[in-house]
Amino acid sequence: MIVEVVAVGTELLLGQITNTNAAVIGAALAAAGHDAHYQQVVGDNLDRIVATLKLAMSRADAVIVTGGIGPTQDDLTREALCAATGRQMLESAEYAEHLRKWFEARGRTMSASNLRQAQYPEGAVMLPNPKGTAPGLYLEHGGVKVFCVPGVPAEMEHLIHHEVLPRLNDHGESVLLSRVIRSWGKPESEVAELLDDLYVGSVNPSLAFLAGSGEIKIRITAKAPDEATARELIEPMEAEVRARLRDAVFGADDQTAEKILLDMLRGKGWTIATAESMTGGLVAAALTAAPGASDTVKGGAVTYWSEVKGAVLGVSDVSEVVDAETAAEMAEGARRLFGADVAVSVTGEAGPEPAEKPVGTVFIGVSTPEGTKVREMRMAGDRERIRSFAVTSAIHLTRLAVSGRWWR
Amino acid sequence: MIVEVVAVGTELLLGQITNTNAAVIGAALAAAGHDAHYQQVVGDNLDRIVATLKLAMSRADAVIVTGGIGPTQDDLTREALCAATGRQMLESAEYAEHLRKWFEARGRTMSASNLRQAQYPEGAVMLPNPKGTAPGLYLEHGGVKVFCVPGVPAEMEHLIHHEVLPRLNDHGESVLLSRVIRSWGKPESEVAELLDDLYVGSVNPSLAFLAGSGEIKIRITAKAPDEATARELIEPMEAEVRARLRDAVFGADDQTAEKILLDMLRGKGWTIATAESMTGGLVAAALTAAPGASDTVKGGAVTYWSEVKGAVLGVSDVSEVVDAETAAEMAEGARRLFGADVAVSVTGEAGPEPAEKPVGTVFIGVSTPEGTKVREMRMAGDRERIRSFAVTSAIHLTRLAVSGRWWR
Repeated sequence: MIVEVVAVGTELLLGQITNTNAAVIGAALAAAGHDAHYQQVVGDNLDRIVATLKLAMSRADAVIVTGGIGPTQDDLTREALCAATGRQMLESAEYAEHLRKWFEARGRTMSASNLRQAQYPEGAVMLPNPKGTAPGLYLEHGGVKVFCVPGVPAEMEHLIHHEVLPRLNDHGESVLLSRVIRSWGKPESEVAELLDDLYVGSVNPSLAFLAGSGEIKIRITAKAPDEATARELIEPMEAEVRARLRDAVFGADDQTAEKILLDMLRGKGWTIATAESMTGGLVAAALTAAPGASDTVKGGAVTYWSEVKGAVLGVSDVSEVVDAETAAEMAEGARRLFGADVAVSVTGEAGPEPAEKPVGTVFIGVSTPEGTKVREMRMAGDRERIRSFAVTSAIHLTRLAVSGRWWR
Repeated sequence: MIVEVVAVGTELLLGQITNTNAAVIGAALAAAGHDAHYQQVVGDNLDRIVATLKLAMSRADAVIVTGGIGPTQDDLTREALCAATGRQMLESAEYAEHLRKWFEARGRTMSASNLRQAQYPEGAVMLPNPKGTAPGLYLEHGGVKVFCVPGVPAEMEHLIHHEVLPRLNDHGESVLLSRVIRSWGKPESEVAELLDDLYVGSVNPSLAFLAGSGEIKIRITAKAPDEATARELIEPMEAEVRARLRDAVFGADDQTAEKILLDMLRGKGWTIATAESMTGGLVAAALTAAPGASDTVKGGAVTYWSEVKGAVLGVSDVSEVVDAETAAEMAEGARRLFGADVAVSVTGEAGPEPAEKPVGTVFIGVSTPEGTKVREMRMAGDRERIRSFAVTSAIHLTRLAVSGRWWR
């Protein structure tokens, strides 16, 4: 079923809040095997909401509207739905009574405006909202299923899962299954070229790329009547993608590089420590982000000042600190200081002002019981981007070192 | 000018990423006095992108398209813009050369697919993107200004501020001016109550709340023919908000707590170091996020293991490490280890499994030449939320300590 999400609210247009509802609903729809072609956002303006609803109803099998069903004057979704479907507005005496009781129970008197929440377009069903006062609405019009849910995330999520999805899934939908292949070490353009023909031909399963912080995710999505069939569609494509990207593939789905690294270390009974300069603690923070890191991550040193690299980590020459020697000595010093089996170090120029070396120059060192290696890298972008690329690179180079496959 | 933002990417429809770009651009447009009536999101499908562009161009004075201009095959924005405007695709030999140099400089060979980024619809201007390889595009068609910017947030933001806004602001719009008051230390409900009447009545200037990581921002927005008049509308409201929130107000606009703290330290000629357990380096990372932190931040220790708290920071009793004594000794130990004037420490239970103390228990210590203090806090939420609240609290408590106003 093709479902379109419409979010109503001027605050979304002004960027005062981010449209997380669209993402939450989009993920829930995909998981349930529905398709999405478009999303729309419209302000609190009656005519524009009507136009938006009409467009969505003209091209989707179901429309989910979030927001604009509260008690205030700028909550116009109910009126817009009446106008878009040529239906009259009715008021539910029963729900009006429910509202009165709701306020009574909380020792508050109900203001007249709250009665707006007892209104509904002729033919619509009210969807109970245990988390708030505004009920959801369900209306079938011209063969299109239209749902209205509150904009408040907690109320929206409850209604999506308890009222909306059951009504969408009531005629055996097909399953939409996704498999995400995670790669690192090849530029996006090279990955794209290696997979070019697969991509161009791909319909079911289909291929998509997602790049960030130096990692590239390849998403394989298959549509089938059932999960088993969807898997059968995905497997050969996954095998082909893995064969072409080779060593660049490090995991799938929710296997982050951090999780994989920590599991490898556990497997060897090794502990890890960090020694960071330009990344200022972000590598240690990444390693400790996952629950249970405390069995493997002993600690880390942020040695931001040159002198501190000498005093705390025993770096011998701190007259220049953005070089391979410093990176190696930082990693070895961290192993000593924390009594860890493995240590990773990062030193470089995050900018914006260049100092010893050009902005974007990064040295990453990894020291294990099997030896110490350093890799020099050059990263583009601003301070924040360079720091985040350096963190990702540090995790991956450590993963390669611990796996015994020293990086090439 | 009426501006419509169009975001391209199937990952947005599937909810694999949230459309933060639309919020960032929406806020920037509002601040510049432009109006927004709609936003659209469309997947990586040529026909649908064309339909979306045509709709936006039919009802807006300017259209900003984010995403779909990278090197891969599912980057279809350039093709769609040609189709929507009936223009042919050209290739810039000059930009192709620029790309070759870009890859050369990084010791990488450019794959052919990167040349897609040198393509542009006839009549379009390429907008330089110093943060990445995909240039933005600017095309005026049928009196409508169309901009294409990358989907990568850092690259998008650079192009919006340096290339797009200047081209939008070239005819006298009315000014929409915003002032953000930053507060910390009062719960959102209390802030909302204290400002309730201002909020309800507010039209011009209008009030909006944004809460996150324990900080609450109050945005005051005024619309006026010129900036001076907008300021006159904002000032009395700002004075009233500050009078009601008192000490909770710590800054305005882009004055982050980190910036304020570092400036205070510079003023006193003091340096700072960190000692972190549950936050795993995030406090040090926050302090070093801003350029120029290196004059003040000497370094930090992430002592994740109890033994390490003793060995590295000299904590005397590590049988229990989630308590006030440990927090105090960690801060004092960090001052010694890094030779810093000030140190902040964090120890606590981030969860999900409770250990010594209930999940959410956090002890924050601050040691300055004037003494050492510890504050115990309780934080709700999951591991990530508890860590981020702990970081914000650590920065603010250090700010209060350094300012001489010990926290109450």
